[in-house]
Amino acid sequence: MSKLLDVEDVSASACCAPLSGPVMGEEEAAELAKVFKALADPVRLRLVNLIASGPGGEVCVCDLTGAFELTAPTISHHLKVLRQAGLIEGERRGTWVYYRVIPEALTRLSGLFALPALTSA
Amino acid sequence: MSKLLDVEDVSASACCAPLSGPVMGEEEAAELAKVFKALADPVRLRLVNLIASGPGGEVCVCDLTGAFELTAPTISHHLKVLRQAGLIEGERRGTWVYYRVIPEALTRLSGLFALPALTSA
Repeated sequence: MSKLLDVEDVSASACCAPLSGPVMGEEEAAELAKVFKALADPVRLRLVNLIASGPGGEVCVCDLTGAFELTAPTISHHLKVLRQAGLIEGERRGTWVYYRVIPEALTRLSGLFALPALTSA
Repeated sequence: MSKLLDVEDVSASACCAPLSGPVMGEEEAAELAKVFKALADPVRLRLVNLIASGPGGEVCVCDLTGAFELTAPTISHHLKVLRQAGLIEGERRGTWVYYRVIPEALTRLSGLFALPALTSA
């Protein structure tokens, strides 16, 4: 009875090489800009934080709405933006949707900002 | 005769803990959202990429303007946004300004997206 919600646009998976690496093409830059646009909002950052730090790596949407002084539709909108950016995914179980981060997306973003290790001791 | 350009708002240094870590406060989320807003633009992402991968870790502004079909004032605007977000810094040497990324800012963003290491072998 569980149903994985559609992820319309997994943009976060588009980025691979670090910023200090090879020249970034226009298409990759455009895809990546969409991911950062999704993260360029305090509420969405806090949502990702709550989801990423949830017990067992997931959080029920019923526990997310209570954490903000915002209406449920507003929270749903922000969650949809994060889903479309490929940062989180949701799974419906009965009444509620449970969200978790997509680890590959976060790992790729982490690698994007990685700098070459210093070779000197 | 060299002059370090002002960095008006070193927001990138505000973020420390990973998204999967402790609860992020509203103030930290707001600061961090500004940094991601600076990165939520394809031209600015490509600028950071060119600067981060420049020889010796820096790039003359004279070499940046030629890489885009944009006017010099437009490039200057984008560089200012990146400076204000605490992602890059510029140093004037004679006629030209040389830009480099601020390593601490990128390292902190990399850490932000780090996930806890799996403890299973």
